[in-house]
Amino acid sequence: MDGSPASAAHQSPWMPFESRRRARDAKREAVLRTAVQLFLEQGYHGTTLNDVAERLNITKPALYNYFRGKDEILYECWAIGQERVDDCIAEIDSGGGTGLTKLRKLIVRYAEVMTTDYGKSLVRFDVRDLTEHNRKIVRTAKKKIDRAFRAYITDGIADGSIRPCDIKLSAFAIAGSLNWIGHWYQPRGALPAEEIAKEFAIRLTEGLAAKQLRKKAGKPPASVKRVRGGTR
Amino acid sequence: MDGSPASAAHQSPWMPFESRRRARDAKREAVLRTAVQLFLEQGYHGTTLNDVAERLNITKPALYNYFRGKDEILYECWAIGQERVDDCIAEIDSGGGTGLTKLRKLIVRYAEVMTTDYGKSLVRFDVRDLTEHNRKIVRTAKKKIDRAFRAYITDGIADGSIRPCDIKLSAFAIAGSLNWIGHWYQPRGALPAEEIAKEFAIRLTEGLAAKQLRKKAGKPPASVKRVRGGTR
Repeated sequence: MDGSPASAAHQSPWMPFESRRRARDAKREAVLRTAVQLFLEQGYHGTTLNDVAERLNITKPALYNYFRGKDEILYECWAIGQERVDDCIAEIDSGGGTGLTKLRKLIVRYAEVMTTDYGKSLVRFDVRDLTEHNRKIVRTAKKKIDRAFRAYITDGIADGSIRPCDIKLSAFAIAGSLNWIGHWYQPRGALPAEEIAKEFAIRLTEGLAAKQLRKKAGKPPASVKRVRGGTR
Repeated sequence: MDGSPASAAHQSPWMPFESRRRARDAKREAVLRTAVQLFLEQGYHGTTLNDVAERLNITKPALYNYFRGKDEILYECWAIGQERVDDCIAEIDSGGGTGLTKLRKLIVRYAEVMTTDYGKSLVRFDVRDLTEHNRKIVRTAKKKIDRAFRAYITDGIADGSIRPCDIKLSAFAIAGSLNWIGHWYQPRGALPAEEIAKEFAIRLTEGLAAKQLRKKAGKPPASVKRVRGGTR
């Protein structure tokens, strides 16, 4: 043991501030990861904070170091899923391409998010279980996703890559198919997320694509043959 | 007042058996109609039996004359929606037509069911809130719907009306769009249920339809122009 300050810090039974922050973040993240799994397995109302604590080998009061309650955990799970979708939209918005290209990109990325636990949070839980304040944030964010789908279809009609259609209905039809992934997708299913995403990007836009682009879209992707027959 | 048996029955403070049965059925149905509205408005967990009783101007104990508990009410609401879908499938199965024709019929009918309160029960509530016994019935019935979609696609591929595709993924994509209607459809929206159903029958199959049939499917229906721009 020498008397240098660095070594003294290491001898302290308390971790240095930066390490403590990281450990806290890691623990917080572990709570969310475990909670979202349990919510998906047992339902939000079928899961108690005791269930979450037990799976983490901690006590229920220890959970309150990280979250004020179950609904805050639910909100945070949802927020992670939403952030991933927001990132996709920002990336697509900052890139180029026709409306159809942007729409297909969003379908691929959104489908991939939907196969993850946090992505499933966006569609499997009831916003009415959140506080009034958080519920408003979620509803506004949901509208943002809907607006992105509509915007890319609108862009596509303007640039000729998508043929005229009922924009709202088309956006709902696409979003519905994608959101449904969050209900049926099982990680141990035979079909990898990327294959589903690619297939949906073709399948969900082939009717919308303008004639000269439809042929390309209508051709089943090379992946389809490989994946046929094994969704779960 | 004469002394005939018929008149005596009318004088009784109790209704004749047949009228009593009908009155009971009507009351039971009123409970379901009110409950499903409240479940959709406030969420299943956000609704108490007191809320249901209050809206019906009866007491909570009076509800127990008709149902053993909230989860039985939820199950019965679901069962009515399911029965409507089962009827559609039976009707389509007993009729003729190509796989594509049958698929489009199912889309139209299923979309219409999804715009009703009982139809929404099929997709808005959590089966885990039901008893073990009823949960199994619901899960089996859900599989039956999925099987119908897959069967018509399979028929269509066999009879040449639908081009080869990943059957499971195509069925999921279609079912997802339709189930999503149960989340966004509002009866006071600008778009009538029949228009949505017709539009979806075209939109969701135009990529699947075999080439010679696709042109017909790709043509937007006459209704599209009328409905554009007003979904809610």
